[in-house]
Amino acid sequence: MKKLDFFSNRHTVRSYNNSPLDIEDIEKMLEAAAHAPNTGNMQWYSVIITTEPELRQALAPTHFNQLSVMEAPAILTFCIDLRRFEHWCRLNNAVPGFENFQSFIAAIIDTSIVAQQFCTIAEINGLGTCYLGTTAYNAPDIARILNLPERVVPVITVAVGYPMGESYHAHRLPVKSIVHRQQFHDYSDEDIRDMYREQEEDELMQRFVKDNNKESLAQVFTDVRYPRESSEYFSKIYYDFLKDNRFFFPE
Amino acid sequence: MKKLDFFSNRHTVRSYNNSPLDIEDIEKMLEAAAHAPNTGNMQWYSVIITTEPELRQALAPTHFNQLSVMEAPAILTFCIDLRRFEHWCRLNNAVPGFENFQSFIAAIIDTSIVAQQFCTIAEINGLGTCYLGTTAYNAPDIARILNLPERVVPVITVAVGYPMGESYHAHRLPVKSIVHRQQFHDYSDEDIRDMYREQEEDELMQRFVKDNNKESLAQVFTDVRYPRESSEYFSKIYYDFLKDNRFFFPE
Repeated sequence: MKKLDFFSNRHTVRSYNNSPLDIEDIEKMLEAAAHAPNTGNMQWYSVIITTEPELRQALAPTHFNQLSVMEAPAILTFCIDLRRFEHWCRLNNAVPGFENFQSFIAAIIDTSIVAQQFCTIAEINGLGTCYLGTTAYNAPDIARILNLPERVVPVITVAVGYPMGESYHAHRLPVKSIVHRQQFHDYSDEDIRDMYREQEEDELMQRFVKDNNKESLAQVFTDVRYPRESSEYFSKIYYDFLKDNRFFFPE
Repeated sequence: MKKLDFFSNRHTVRSYNNSPLDIEDIEKMLEAAAHAPNTGNMQWYSVIITTEPELRQALAPTHFNQLSVMEAPAILTFCIDLRRFEHWCRLNNAVPGFENFQSFIAAIIDTSIVAQQFCTIAEINGLGTCYLGTTAYNAPDIARILNLPERVVPVITVAVGYPMGESYHAHRLPVKSIVHRQQFHDYSDEDIRDMYREQEEDELMQRFVKDNNKESLAQVFTDVRYPRESSEYFSKIYYDFLKDNRFFFPE
């Protein structure tokens, strides 16, 4: 099989050198990425390419000042965008009925797909990328900074630039952990322990456990990185922001 | 830039020839695809590879009997999976707090990313793929057929096989429609008309309008393909199924 190694060896890049990055090249890559599949060819997404230092500086706190935001020459904010399509519908005497959970699901899947297709194209062209998992936390602030109008909601942010230095290559679970043949086959406690062993024995992970005074790597995730209270707090902010943007979910 | 043409020329494949497809090859591609980025390296997804004709036959009605389901030698169901990670947490004296909207958002993004990375790898290796956008409609039935336990929810289905015949290459909007520099810049009515002109003039699209006795292509989307009542009906089914699987959203 071709190219498996390219995909298996890829990794997130968090440090970038000073090579300039042409905004038109990014647009060309996005143009190609937009040929990824999408629901009904409705293209319910938009991408904001931000290179101006003042705007990146303004975005930085919304991403908890992760270094990538200021160090990367370009920040791409991938948004669900129902606005363009609904505008077209209204110009054509068609009444859009997309203020529902199914439309949100279709849009977030399609936005994620185009983001990943962009990252693959960027990486094939020697760029490094870093997803910032914080976009759904501070979406109202991001929307204000980027002038997002109603029906345009940020979901993914990707920092892009030419890589500097070595990057950490994260382990993944053995493939048998994530793939099931024919139907789902549940795991025993022993299966689970086997799957996570390599991650637990990783030196960097063991340092996380020690530095955070935790008993186990799992506790680093549940107590430090993704505590329930924080997730619930940001869930409410994002949910309310979606409602403000007329994405209504059944209750 | 490298490989842009490969990505720009790709297209969905809905007809497959009889070449056998090795389930182990699919697993290798999924193994490589899992090196795509994911939130906190928690890998909140699972993939079911279904090749057995009886199971594909059982799945077919959940996808409204789209031909791909029976014609493709393999059906991949990509699921949000919090079950494995939470099992690991409980084995390690860690209390998971992931029954919230933020966890759902992270999981659906990561599941979409790994699905798209798989599709790219499959296409590079000469396979054809087709997303079935119906997975979030009949998720409870799909879950029953595939034995999905609690906390494992299907979100994306991809049909995979070796392509047969020519495929339709769908137009995409001009790139300026989806990309904004620095900040979002809203569209005028004329901008919108320009963006959609090529799609409206496409022969196949004009046939859709005529065959459905509609005035405009937009009406085909709003009245025929994605009518409000149908989207709201399936929204409620999926939302309730997520709640049954302990994904709770703020209300």
